[in-house]
Amino acid sequence: MKLRPKSGFFVEMREGVHMAASIICKGFRMAGISAGLKKEGKPDLGLLVCDAPAAVAGVFTTNRVQAAPVRLTRGRIGSGRCQAVIVNSKNANCCTGAQGATDAAAMAEVAARALGIAVELVAVASTGVIGEPLPLSKITAAVPELAGALSEEGLEAFAGSIMTTDTVPKTAATTVSLEHGSFSVVGVAKGAGMIRPDMATLLSFVWTDAAAAPEVLASILQPAVDATFNRISIDGDTSTNDTVLLLAGGASGVSASSGPGRDALAEAVQKVLSDLARAIVKDGEGATKLVEIRVRGADSDQSAREIADTVAHSNLVKTAFFGQDANWGRILAAAGRAGVAFDPETVDLYFDNVRMVRNGVGCGKDAEAAATAVLKQPEFTVTLDLNGGRGEAAVLTCDFSVDYVRINADYRS
Amino acid sequence: MKLRPKSGFFVEMREGVHMAASIICKGFRMAGISAGLKKEGKPDLGLLVCDAPAAVAGVFTTNRVQAAPVRLTRGRIGSGRCQAVIVNSKNANCCTGAQGATDAAAMAEVAARALGIAVELVAVASTGVIGEPLPLSKITAAVPELAGALSEEGLEAFAGSIMTTDTVPKTAATTVSLEHGSFSVVGVAKGAGMIRPDMATLLSFVWTDAAAAPEVLASILQPAVDATFNRISIDGDTSTNDTVLLLAGGASGVSASSGPGRDALAEAVQKVLSDLARAIVKDGEGATKLVEIRVRGADSDQSAREIADTVAHSNLVKTAFFGQDANWGRILAAAGRAGVAFDPETVDLYFDNVRMVRNGVGCGKDAEAAATAVLKQPEFTVTLDLNGGRGEAAVLTCDFSVDYVRINADYRS
Repeated sequence: MKLRPKSGFFVEMREGVHMAASIICKGFRMAGISAGLKKEGKPDLGLLVCDAPAAVAGVFTTNRVQAAPVRLTRGRIGSGRCQAVIVNSKNANCCTGAQGATDAAAMAEVAARALGIAVELVAVASTGVIGEPLPLSKITAAVPELAGALSEEGLEAFAGSIMTTDTVPKTAATTVSLEHGSFSVVGVAKGAGMIRPDMATLLSFVWTDAAAAPEVLASILQPAVDATFNRISIDGDTSTNDTVLLLAGGASGVSASSGPGRDALAEAVQKVLSDLARAIVKDGEGATKLVEIRVRGADSDQSAREIADTVAHSNLVKTAFFGQDANWGRILAAAGRAGVAFDPETVDLYFDNVRMVRNGVGCGKDAEAAATAVLKQPEFTVTLDLNGGRGEAAVLTCDFSVDYVRINADYRS
Repeated sequence: MKLRPKSGFFVEMREGVHMAASIICKGFRMAGISAGLKKEGKPDLGLLVCDAPAAVAGVFTTNRVQAAPVRLTRGRIGSGRCQAVIVNSKNANCCTGAQGATDAAAMAEVAARALGIAVELVAVASTGVIGEPLPLSKITAAVPELAGALSEEGLEAFAGSIMTTDTVPKTAATTVSLEHGSFSVVGVAKGAGMIRPDMATLLSFVWTDAAAAPEVLASILQPAVDATFNRISIDGDTSTNDTVLLLAGGASGVSASSGPGRDALAEAVQKVLSDLARAIVKDGEGATKLVEIRVRGADSDQSAREIADTVAHSNLVKTAFFGQDANWGRILAAAGRAGVAFDPETVDLYFDNVRMVRNGVGCGKDAEAAATAVLKQPEFTVTLDLNGGRGEAAVLTCDFSVDYVRINADYRS
């Protein structure tokens, strides 16, 4: 699969984030309600249902420690079919032993019964605190109300129910028009990794009314995740519960299993994931800045990616962004420890279009003043040009604020 | 070289940190004064001198971006001989191009002239902000006063002059008595890495009045650094200026080039570095907790080390320590992403002696209450027992506080 150009990828794809609610994806209904897991009656239980069994593909955490719902869902979608996804927030159902596996299965079972479908068609996801027993009875009691709340307009309610420390629900959608008809792709997500550490899980559910085989969905989903969710600053903090699912119901009557239909679906899925990834970084815990780190002139795209990742994840760089300090030495120092060979004496560095470093040496006070003005903006780009080969990459990150520490020191209490 | 037992290494080696000033190491003199690089007349220029050329070995940063003094000193000590080390704080002389190299050489030259020794015998080190020209004229003007201040009792002044965001000078010393005589090992250090990010360099200078060949010193220094400075939470934030030098002057008349003398010197050097490493973590930016992460029951020592490192460097774990929150799920999640195979369902976890997790599942509210009491202490141990093989490792870390972000957001201003 051909990916979009790497540099500038995120910045080019802003439109559409807030249009999601107005786009209808035929055959899907959603709901989100409070089951009493969170305090103050906040929504904490969500449901996505397709009118008929849909094709499905998934991408899951690579953590050695995997939550019970991840293990259950990973196995279950191996069939390639899925009709419903039930999700709770506030509790990760992870490190919960045999009871956790029983509880995840029971959560699917109660949803299947309420919907009148086979339990094998129900996927489960959880996010929240690790190591506490799932309050299954609260979930069981709430499922009938949840099923009753299902609606074609349930997008925002569903997105709200999967939030943990997110401050806004995250939805994205796009419509594709082809010669033989049109289809939609709609998705929701909650925050992840470094940005949403620990509880912290990245959950994303994406659905389309195009028709596509499960193996086609899989071939579309993995590279789309790699180009989007895997290019935001998650600091290696792969959670125990990360789950991305893509469902294709087919109610539009448009086939996307091959040819231009498949290409259009792939592009639309990547666009939706890109919008969601951007929304996640923007809503990072305590974040005040959205920064794209671009690296070019590297030996290879992979080398560029490793340098961009190291810079994007550096606490030093991120705290300097918070301080609105054009401290380019921290950026070069982070690049230098990425484990990639380059010549420090040919490096140029830019904040937006302001050149701050030329051939590894600072450009002086005027450049610094101009760069400081760039850093006062809520969004900007850092470009590191190694002036070596043709490799390039971009990673999206946020700053690292006092509030990040406050949020994470206090999370469980 | 046989290292000391890995688990519990740090906790066993507390004594001696504050005794350094009372130990005399024959043939060495030190000084530290203000050259006007720091504000408010704080000491910023230091000098270590041996009465005669000493044997020397060094360990330097692995960052691709290396400061001018690192490049100069690395080349110069290749001769195995060194008689003086001149060090400035506040400016790293890094990313300063050809002028930086000229300035580093000039700094050595002016010291050599003041001391009346060959410039090839003078090592240079710098620490501070990256990318600003070295204020050479201030240094040049201050060197005569610096040389005049040299004293056998100059240890604290020297240690104070190399500080950046350190709040206390760090010194350590030990005396070794053998059948044929006794010798001392004395050292100073400033903070590093994640703990002292960016400016942030780890500098350490260690000297002994034992006699030893340069290649013996090298064979002692590298494993001692690996067992101490490389086992504190530096988060991969290898700075551009990291430098550790070991000098052996020989004025005690005791040879430590082979046999029991060499073994005793190796042990003493490691003890001094261990004390300094501990002092560095304890004085971490904004740190309020000193935590030893022990991993045992791993497939190999290397696997244990990788897990201990990942836990020790996790922002999630460190913010939970700051919050005094026994959030063991974060510790297991960090272990799970270390890239090392283990069975999550056989893992036990302890805070000091309180078992919090058994076979991958939490031990409940009573254990949690006891663990929370442990976390309220200023120092404690986290032990992760994988109950697999016999591999083990220990890494020392600190918590991650609101003040860490404040310090790093404001550093340059």
